This record gives sequence, structure tokens and C-alpha cells, in this order.
Amino acid sequence: MLTDIEIAHRAKLKPIEEIAEKIGIDSDDLECYGHYKAKVSLKFTKEVKNRPQGKLILVTAISPTPAGEGKTTTTVGLGQALAQLDKKVMICLREPSLGPCMGIKGGAAGGGYSQVVPMEDINLHFTGDFHAITSAHNLLSAMVDNHIKQGNVLNIDPRQVVWNHVMDMNDRTLRHIVVGLGGKANGVPRESSFDITVASEIMAIFCLATSITDLKERLGRIIVAYTYDGEPVTASDIHAEGAMTALLKDAIKPNLVQTLEHVPAFIHGGPFANIAHGCNSVLATTTALHLADYVVTEAGFGADLGAEKFLDLKCRFANLHPDAAVLVATVRALKMNGGKAKTELKESDPEAVRRGLPNLERHIANLKKFGLPIVVALNLFPTDTAEEKQIIYDACEKAGVAVADSDVFMNGGKGGIDLARKVLKATESENHYAPLYDLNLSIKEKIETIARNIYGAANVQYDTAAEKALKEIQKLGMENFPVCIAKTPASFTDDPKQLGAPSGFTLHVRDMRISAGAGFIVVLTGKVMTMPGLPKHPAAERIDVDEDGNITGLF
Amino acid sequence: MLTDIEIAHRAKLKPIEEIAEKIGIDSDDLECYGHYKAKVSLKFTKEVKNRPQGKLILVTAISPTPAGEGKTTTTVGLGQALAQLDKKVMICLREPSLGPCMGIKGGAAGGGYSQVVPMEDINLHFTGDFHAITSAHNLLSAMVDNHIKQGNVLNIDPRQVVWNHVMDMNDRTLRHIVVGLGGKANGVPRESSFDITVASEIMAIFCLATSITDLKERLGRIIVAYTYDGEPVTASDIHAEGAMTALLKDAIKPNLVQTLEHVPAFIHGGPFANIAHGCNSVLATTTALHLADYVVTEAGFGADLGAEKFLDLKCRFANLHPDAAVLVATVRALKMNGGKAKTELKESDPEAVRRGLPNLERHIANLKKFGLPIVVALNLFPTDTAEEKQIIYDACEKAGVAVADSDVFMNGGKGGIDLARKVLKATESENHYAPLYDLNLSIKEKIETIARNIYGAANVQYDTAAEKALKEIQKLGMENFPVCIAKTPASFTDDPKQLGAPSGFTLHVRDMRISAGAGFIVVLTGKVMTMPGLPKHPAAERIDVDEDGNITGLF
Repeated sequence: MLTDIEIAHRAKLKPIEEIAEKIGIDSDDLECYGHYKAKVSLKFTKEVKNRPQGKLILVTAISPTPAGEGKTTTTVGLGQALAQLDKKVMICLREPSLGPCMGIKGGAAGGGYSQVVPMEDINLHFTGDFHAITSAHNLLSAMVDNHIKQGNVLNIDPRQVVWNHVMDMNDRTLRHIVVGLGGKANGVPRESSFDITVASEIMAIFCLATSITDLKERLGRIIVAYTYDGEPVTASDIHAEGAMTALLKDAIKPNLVQTLEHVPAFIHGGPFANIAHGCNSVLATTTALHLADYVVTEAGFGADLGAEKFLDLKCRFANLHPDAAVLVATVRALKMNGGKAKTELKESDPEAVRRGLPNLERHIANLKKFGLPIVVALNLFPTDTAEEKQIIYDACEKAGVAVADSDVFMNGGKGGIDLARKVLKATESENHYAPLYDLNLSIKEKIETIARNIYGAANVQYDTAAEKALKEIQKLGMENFPVCIAKTPASFTDDPKQLGAPSGFTLHVRDMRISAGAGFIVVLTGKVMTMPGLPKHPAAERIDVDEDGNITGLF
Repeated sequence: MLTDIEIAHRAKLKPIEEIAEKIGIDSDDLECYGHYKAKVSLKFTKEVKNRPQGKLILVTAISPTPAGEGKTTTTVGLGQALAQLDKKVMICLREPSLGPCMGIKGGAAGGGYSQVVPMEDINLHFTGDFHAITSAHNLLSAMVDNHIKQGNVLNIDPRQVVWNHVMDMNDRTLRHIVVGLGGKANGVPRESSFDITVASEIMAIFCLATSITDLKERLGRIIVAYTYDGEPVTASDIHAEGAMTALLKDAIKPNLVQTLEHVPAFIHGGPFANIAHGCNSVLATTTALHLADYVVTEAGFGADLGAEKFLDLKCRFANLHPDAAVLVATVRALKMNGGKAKTELKESDPEAVRRGLPNLERHIANLKKFGLPIVVALNLFPTDTAEEKQIIYDACEKAGVAVADSDVFMNGGKGGIDLARKVLKATESENHYAPLYDLNLSIKEKIETIARNIYGAANVQYDTAAEKALKEIQKLGMENFPVCIAKTPASFTDDPKQLGAPSGFTLHVRDMRISAGAGFIVVLTGKVMTMPGLPKHPAAERIDVDEDGNITGLF
């Protein structure tokens, strides 16, 4: 088997103008970035709003394990399969973050014969969107510190600056830093930190904004600090939102690329699915819905985080009505959820699959609570045995949901025909989609609704910091904001070691943060990593490029 | 008079493919970034090497003052004037840095009717080259710190890490920081700093590299730290150069844009002219020389810094033979060099011009030492009087160099016809170009040659740190490297307050740094700012963008 990058390199791509033409985008509305990437003009995203809307299919997954569940691969493969069935289809994905590509993760553009291409461009700088977000974020940081230094008219307390810096790189030494050292000319010393760019509130804002004006207003609402009197100071108080928006004026345009089988794909925005809502931009999704009859999109992490946020945050904000949910599962991941070590996954172990089943069943039950038709996609691996697979089929039958094998990694769209047929059928079924909770509930009630209904917790415990933050939220009149719970993706609980489907546990809320621009309250449970580190031997050590510009070592 | 951005917005740009076609670049060799920017493929830069070479014209200037000398404007205007004389011409400029656009500086893409466009794109993210350099730089930083944390096999002394971080933003609080705080998981605490991206050694390397292979080799030679035993550790020891080069594989391709009068321009790379060599990439210049009969390019700061480095570093490394030098002067800047305050420049003051003349005369004499034909371009301002101008004409006649008015800001190419004619004549004159010094001289001899011949110093004094650095340079066998002197651009001395043309002074060398990848020794005199701050009211406060993406407030 060839590596992902080898498959991607052997693919014969079509010029992006040709891909665009298929979905009715004229070259005038296309801003090419090289031969195979393009941005779509904002004018076009407005003009298409009168066109009829296609159906929206969400791809989500069981709890992720190091075995890999293949969610992006399934999303791309399903799109390709629908195209093979002559459906007019588009795919909407998140943009990968450059930093993790240099660490353990490798690329994030699908795999095997279900990839979006050019994969190395998509994985590295792509069209520069994340760099623009980094610049806008750090401009605001510089303006806040500059304000403090230049007389501090707003009376900002340097100990209460809540806007840090970002960088799209895995650098653990920047997690906790002291800045402003070296004397008066260098500003005011204070503690600070760098997050990875995808963790910036701007990333969440960027993915929720519906226009430049909306973007600017959201950026202006960001809380950057508190005064000595405890009053919030916003980006707008610092007069930063205009320049920040100027830095994002091109980034906000959706990026068009193609899959290995020439299915058009928007890849745009990439917020984390813990501290943010974890799906691609609203602008990309809504535009795609006017261009295709079927739009396949994915949400980050497992369904407890990604799908919940897609359905409770993105769909609510953007007034989207998803038509079906595809839940990706693998024999391997269920075995890990059933207690097998990663090194033992090659052996057939039907009992381990059976022990892991509750994880799948919980996710199915959860998705049903949103009123959506569900199809389980069993993403095949060569080591899967018939007996192991049968256990999963039986569980799905028992749960009353459709299930289909997905062999899109090995066979591209052809490997997803059965899945595609079942998904098409699901989109025709009864659909009672509604968000899980009402915005008028209190913040605690919202948290507890998710904790009980989705995670299976018995109760929720709040640390002092969380209680204090809640008071501030109430003071600022933000109790009607939806919540965005940051929790480990590895477990339904806040402890990454508790696999399977634990219940009756206590969820610990450590702290809360206001994402005033995004319009939600981030609820922190456990430790949430917002700046990854590099492993002992980072992928970067193996990445290389030859004189003709061909990259190797990026998977 | 309209502002620069208003003029730029009213211009009717031609599609970049059309501009490319004029100079023989096929669309296959063009990677468009939107409709008006494109990168040229590396394959093409290699193929053109067999074509005949055009003539190379350097635009430099007298010592810069806050009055502004208009070097980029003159470069663009001269190119446009040559085109009006039916010459096949290209312009090569540096890419502006995003950070300073948000501070005092505003844009850096020429002015009035002599601009490169689209000016707001060029001034902001452009084609992402600087973001790629930022990423490559910070990847190396992260890999060095990661190496120390993960066992430190190379025995790196954390107190002797000489590779810091960069950001393309003016943020003074990042000038001196402590990183790695917060416990064992966050690496090893150490002092560090952020420079602005243009100050990165990678920027210098990027602008000197002749191919991907050359780029990778140069990146590998960067010294990142010293061991506890005092031995240098390189990027190649950390195995970072492959991934760093991969991050730069597109950035290294020259960027094509157009002037307001549709003259093709490469804008590529932008190193500082103090700690680096201050001119656009070798790849852009050499490619342009094979595409046009005349290539007009500029060097940073005044001729003592920019031209010296262009002639001693870039031309030497790239085997370029410049055909003429244009020295930009203004009545206003000469008045400031003659002791006038910035607020008094509107009044006619022939005596102040006369007092400032020695600055012009010194730069003329200096350029003659490189054996180049010289034309003085008097960049006109509405407040200039005939009497003031005559003083400059007389001085040029006395010095035996041609002089021409340049009204390209107000009139575009038409305003530079006389200048263009004189420049054409200069390129036909006798030319004895040679670098100022031989590489076989010692480092001190090289420094002293420049200090005496260009700056007018009587002698050079070395601080202890500089003497220590010199020993290290000798130990590493780098005494045959050329020197890149970092000095204030405001004065021939190392004191920015000494305007005019002081002589007999002592130049103080504070320290030296090895730019092993760039291949030169950076000699630090006085204080050199490598991370600017924002002013009390940064330009960013006025920058805005409307719903159609039109930016205002960026001049």
C-alpha cells in the first residue's frame, strides 16, 4: 500500500476552475491560489443565497482512540460515493493546523483513496487563513499591551489581561511565559502564554461569522482584559476590530479544493472541538448548501463533543437543519474502548469488541436525542474479522439504526456505495432535529443537561473558580449564552482514562471563560491543553522536500 | 490630492496573466494568488537562465530622515518611465513587513502615482511568504527546546540557545521574555525573545538562496545554540532543515505584481538593511534580469547601509554586475541633514540645504568607490524652491554626476522621463564595479575598510563582547566571511543624532553574531532594534474594512 502522500502525488488533479465550474462558480468569482486551490468571492456567497438548499449530512464518530477512527477519510469517501451515484455533492471540512503536522499527528486531509488534495498544501500553509488569524490575534495582544504602556487611559489591570498570544506551532515552552521584561521601554511585565492558533477565540468567531460586518462586530466584542475596577475591556474599546477584520478580509472567503475523485470540497476554518465548536465555517457550509444537493461535513472529536457542538452551537447560530448523522466506528477503536491495548489490536478479539459496544450505543442514543436519522459507518481495517464486525451489525440492528461497511480508505468512493445509499435513505426519513437545550435555561442547567444526557454523568461539581466565573457571566448578562464544554475527547467523563461508556460519575467544572465574540461560554472540565508539545521524535525530523518541491515524510 | 490607497483603488489593474505574458511567462509557469498576484514556478526560474541578461539599476538614497526620501516611489516611477520610453523593464522590490503597517509606518509599496498594486495585499499578507518564514523560524525554536526537554542528547546549554522566536508584529513586550515556566511539562525555563520576522536569519537566507537545495543547506548551517562544552549546534544537528525547507517551498518562488502603469514587478523577500543585507531575493533579481532589458531594484535605508550591502554582499554572492546606481535625494531631507526640524521643512531655506549637502556628497563619493556610474534623482516635493534645487544641481555638477528631477509621485512614469534618459545613458558609461573589500582580509580589516571608506570613521573600537565573538568566529574558521554591519540608518556614525556627514569619529562595535546560513558576520554597532513597538496611536486604530472588503486607513 502506498502512503497517503504517495497516493496524493500520483493523483491527476483537475484545474480548480474546472471543479468550480461543475458547481456553478464562474472564474470571476474565483480567486485562485495556484492551480488547485481557490477562494470564492464574498459577493458570490451572497448571490447564491437565493438558490435552493441541499441536504446536510453530519459525519461524527465514537470516542476517539489512538487506533484512529477515520472520520475525515469517511467524510471524503462518502462524498465521493455520493458522486459515484450521480448526486451533486460537496464536502465541507476543517482546515488542518500546521503545528500538529510537525508533531505526532501528520496530515489531516483524509487518507488512502479518500483524501482532499493537494494534501501537503492543505496541511501546511494552505491559503494562509490560519496565519491571518494568528496575525489578527497577535495584533490585538500588541495593542492591549501598547495601550497599557502608553498611559493606560482605560485603566487596564495588567494582572487581568485575559487575551494572550497565539502561534500555529507546537511549542510547550510558550505555555507559560513572562513578558515585558528588560526595563521600561519594553512595556509592563506580566504573566502571559501562547496558545496554538486554532485555540484562539478568533478561530471560533471566524467560523461563526456570516459576513465581514458580522465578523467585525464579533471581534469588537472580545473581552481582552479587566480594569482595576473589574470592568471588562473589549477589543472595540482598544479600537482594534477594524484592523483585525482587515487582516481577515481574504481569510473569510471559503477555500475550494477537490478530492482524489474530483468532488468539490470547501476546507475552511478549524476550531478545536473542546474550547470551541469544532467545525468548519458557517460561510462555507451555507454556501455549499446552495451549490450542491448533498453537503457532507464533519465535526471534531467524538459525537459527545463535536456533534453536540455542531448541533447545539453551529446549527443553532446558523439556522441549519441537518438531514442525517453518520457515526463512524471501527472494530479497532471499539476493542480499545473494550480495554485492549493499542499494541494488541491486530488480534481478533470479539469479546473486546463486545465490551467496547456501550461506547457506540451511547453515541447512537445521544444522536437520537437530537432527533436525527443515523447511519453507522463501519470503517474497515484489514485486520477486522467477520465475527467482530457481526457484533457491531447486531448492535446497530438492536439500536434500530442503519449500518454499512466503509472501505473508502482502500477503494475511494467505490468503497462507500452501500454507505452512501443508506445515508441517502436516511436523509429521506423522518427528522425531528432540535438542539438539546433551550437558551433560556441557566448556564448550570445547560451544563447539566449536556452532562446528564450526553456524557451520562450523575451530577456536576463546580470549582470555586467556576462559581466565580459564573457570577461574572451573570453580572455581564450572558446567562442566555449557549455553553461550549471543553472535555477530554477520549472519554465521556472528564478523565481520559475512563473508556467505554461510564455512567453515574461526577463531572468536574474547573473554570469558565467568556467567548463574547463567538457568543458562547466555554466550560472547562479537567485539564485542557491549548498548546501542544512535540514528541521525542517529531514528524518534522522526517519531513523533507526535493529540488522540484516534492515533499516527503508528511502523512 | 488623493491618498495612496485611494489612487491604488481607482487604478484599473490588468489580470496578472496578461502582465506575465508581456515578459514571456506562460500561464503554466504562473501560480496565481487571486487575480492580480502570482508566483512564478521554480522550474521557470531555472529555464530562463539561458536567456540573455538585462542591465541592473540600483536605487539607493541619502541618509533617511523622518521627512521621507521616496526611494520605493522613485524605483517604481523610474521603472514606469523606462517603460514609457519603450524599454522592456522589470522592477524588483522587497516585500513590506505587516507589523510596521500597523504601527507608524503605513504601507511600503511606493506612493502617489508610482505604486505597486494591489497595495493593501502587498502590505498585509501578500502571498504569505513572511508567514512561511515565521513558521520555519518558530518550528526550529520549538525543535531546539523540544530536544533539550527530550533528553538533550546534543548536550545543549539552555543558557546558550541563540535561536529565539519571531512574529510579524510590533510587540515590545516580547523583546525580553522568560519561557518554559510552569513546571516540568512545559520544558526548561530560560530567557528568550521575539524579533520581528524580517530580522530572522531565515529572511536573509531566503533572499540569498539560489535553489531549494541551496536553501536547505543554508538552513542546516544555522547555529541555534552552544553545548555546555562551547561547541556550536546547528539546525542540521536538530534535523530541522528538511521540514523548514518544506515550509518555504512555495515562499521561495518570486511574486509577480504590477505597477499602476502595468510595469511587471517582482516583490520578494524583505530583510532588514542593518542586521541583514536589505534587498529583495537573489532569485527574483536574477530571474528578472533574464526577462527584461532593464531591471530597477532598490536597497534598504541609505547608501551607507543598503547600497554597501547590495554591492558587497548580494552582488558578490549572486555574481551580479550592476550597471548604474540612482541616488535619491530630496530638498527636505537635505534640510534636515542641515539641521532643520521636521516641522520647519515647508519654509524655503537654501542655507539649510547647503549645510545638508555634505551628506549627499559623501554618498556620491562612496558609490564611486564601487566603480559605478551614478545618477542623482531629486525627488520633488511641492514646497521645494528653485533656489534650493539649484544648490543640489550645482553640487552634482561639481561631483561630476548626472542629476534629474523626479516627479513620479505626482505624475507617475511621465514624471521620470528625464531621470530615465539619464539612467539609460549611465548604464552605457564605463563601469568598473567591484566590491569594496577582499574576503581574505580579516574581519576587523573588513569592518575598518567600511568604517573608514563609507562611514568616514577614523577608527573602530571593539567592546569585550565583540572581541569574544571574534575569537569564536576565528575558532569556527569563519574569518573569510563578509561582514554585515548593523548601524543606525539615520547617521554615518553609530549615533542617530549625528546628521550630515560627520568624520573623524570612532565607530563602536558592541558585539558580533554569526549568520552561518546567510554566510556573513553581523557586526552590531550601537543599539539595534529587532522588535519595534507601536506608537501611542497605532495606524491599526484607523484601519478599517467595509462589507465589500475595501480597506481604508492604510497609507
